[in-house]
Amino acid sequence: VLGPGDDCAILKTRGANLLFTVDSLVEGVHFALGWMRGRDLGARALTVNLSDIAAMGGRPTACVVNLALRDGIETRVVDQIYAGLEDAAATADVDIVGGNINRARELSITIAMLGELRGTAMRRDSARIGDQIFVTGTLGDAALGWRLLAGKLQAPKGKSRTHLIDRYVRPAARLAAAQNLVSLRPMPAAIDISDGLLQDLEHILERSKVGAEIDALAVPVSSAYRSIVGEDLSYALGGGEDYELLFCARPRYSESEFGRRLGLPVRQIGRIVRGRGLKVTGAAKIAGWDQLRSGELKP
Amino acid sequence: VLGPGDDCAILKTRGANLLFTVDSLVEGVHFALGWMRGRDLGARALTVNLSDIAAMGGRPTACVVNLALRDGIETRVVDQIYAGLEDAAATADVDIVGGNINRARELSITIAMLGELRGTAMRRDSARIGDQIFVTGTLGDAALGWRLLAGKLQAPKGKSRTHLIDRYVRPAARLAAAQNLVSLRPMPAAIDISDGLLQDLEHILERSKVGAEIDALAVPVSSAYRSIVGEDLSYALGGGEDYELLFCARPRYSESEFGRRLGLPVRQIGRIVRGRGLKVTGAAKIAGWDQLRSGELKP
Repeated sequence: VLGPGDDCAILKTRGANLLFTVDSLVEGVHFALGWMRGRDLGARALTVNLSDIAAMGGRPTACVVNLALRDGIETRVVDQIYAGLEDAAATADVDIVGGNINRARELSITIAMLGELRGTAMRRDSARIGDQIFVTGTLGDAALGWRLLAGKLQAPKGKSRTHLIDRYVRPAARLAAAQNLVSLRPMPAAIDISDGLLQDLEHILERSKVGAEIDALAVPVSSAYRSIVGEDLSYALGGGEDYELLFCARPRYSESEFGRRLGLPVRQIGRIVRGRGLKVTGAAKIAGWDQLRSGELKP
Repeated sequence: VLGPGDDCAILKTRGANLLFTVDSLVEGVHFALGWMRGRDLGARALTVNLSDIAAMGGRPTACVVNLALRDGIETRVVDQIYAGLEDAAATADVDIVGGNINRARELSITIAMLGELRGTAMRRDSARIGDQIFVTGTLGDAALGWRLLAGKLQAPKGKSRTHLIDRYVRPAARLAAAQNLVSLRPMPAAIDISDGLLQDLEHILERSKVGAEIDALAVPVSSAYRSIVGEDLSYALGGGEDYELLFCARPRYSESEFGRRLGLPVRQIGRIVRGRGLKVTGAAKIAGWDQLRSGELKP
């Protein structure tokens, strides 16, 4: 029904549509082992896939796990990774139905996940001119958390630092909120923010063949974010790994109405317009625009 | 329906049973890039998964591919790998429905595949006392091909060397033969020989809670195999990666009847007996028994 180019592939079977996705976390690329406990690492690997299923409005059902282990990884750490996988799977009511372990020169966790879809999916190609663009939660926290862990950014110990690192280490997949969105008519276009707000929005614009205007000052950031980088919105616009939802809906519900429906803070950040391309307005400070465009601000 | 511990997981959906499996090829562990063209590598990565679906009697339907690329891999090689994946997918009528590319310190290809099952699967846990044990094709060729490529074994250039290397580089998944087996009643227990004959048979024995007697001299080896290592059966018994089928069936069909049904040479190598454990009889020369037990004879 739908192949590469969206968060998940849609497979038609007799009676049910399945979602099927794969993602991988690689040591030295996406994380260092010293940054988080094995349990968090396992849970995070699974959550990244849950988020892809969520973004299309599916219910995750089953996954298989490929664990590549390098020399020097203790059995204790492997057990912790599995415990984290099982924690996250149990919370999301997903079965880990198979797996494979192999040796490698670096630790990696690759997960393929299936999801069930009642009816049709929220896709990237269905944004329409006049749609309002919304995001859930706050953006940029995970990118800052990652930079703090990687030593690319300094901040004093305290609640802000802890909050940002926690957002990177223990992201949430917005499954319940996405289930609510998929029941709206007309159905919104949606994506999870894994690559960064601007890049993920551009995925929607390309596939929907429309343009967008974003008010940078409307992009939601946390007080922890502001306490570390002030008004610089680079990380909120370009940092990935937040796993919040971005969706484009007909003007019908206000921010607060969506907030109540989804059980999460929801902010309108712009709208879909005729033409192509993405215009960012608002007298926002974007210190790292060049790095933002080159992807340097994210893991 | 069936979780970890068999070739595939079985997922129940409304109307159809799905098979779902994952496997990975890692550079420096399973292969070196100089050993084969990118096209062969791609095809081989897919075939390894096809074989898991085949072994349970399923029809492969869709897969997702995670490609981890290290620095120094040319675009040309990546294109070749994809071409090989697409070749093998087209031949087996499988759709590559999604994928992911990430950076890593070594090249690896991880594939998760779905298969459709009409009725029930050929499992590892259904071998019964009195069953005859059969294998398709010849065994040990791929292990010798791997050793030749890895420089662990020397052989003069010629047809034998070429044949053995080809069996390693371009294995076949026994999809059609397995489709035939799954239609037998009672249904055989089956597994694909990826870890080596003895080890894969032991998987069946453990899960079926039975024992087996194998006549080592009945284990089929190719003339190329004999021309390189003579009567030493170590590689036929312990070398993996052949992707032939091992199955346990009620006494009913002879070797040649099975051969006609499956369209492949089929050899009876032993039988399932009461008790536990595997007894190898026959005055066979097994030069590398210790290495065989430790897994050193295979990739």
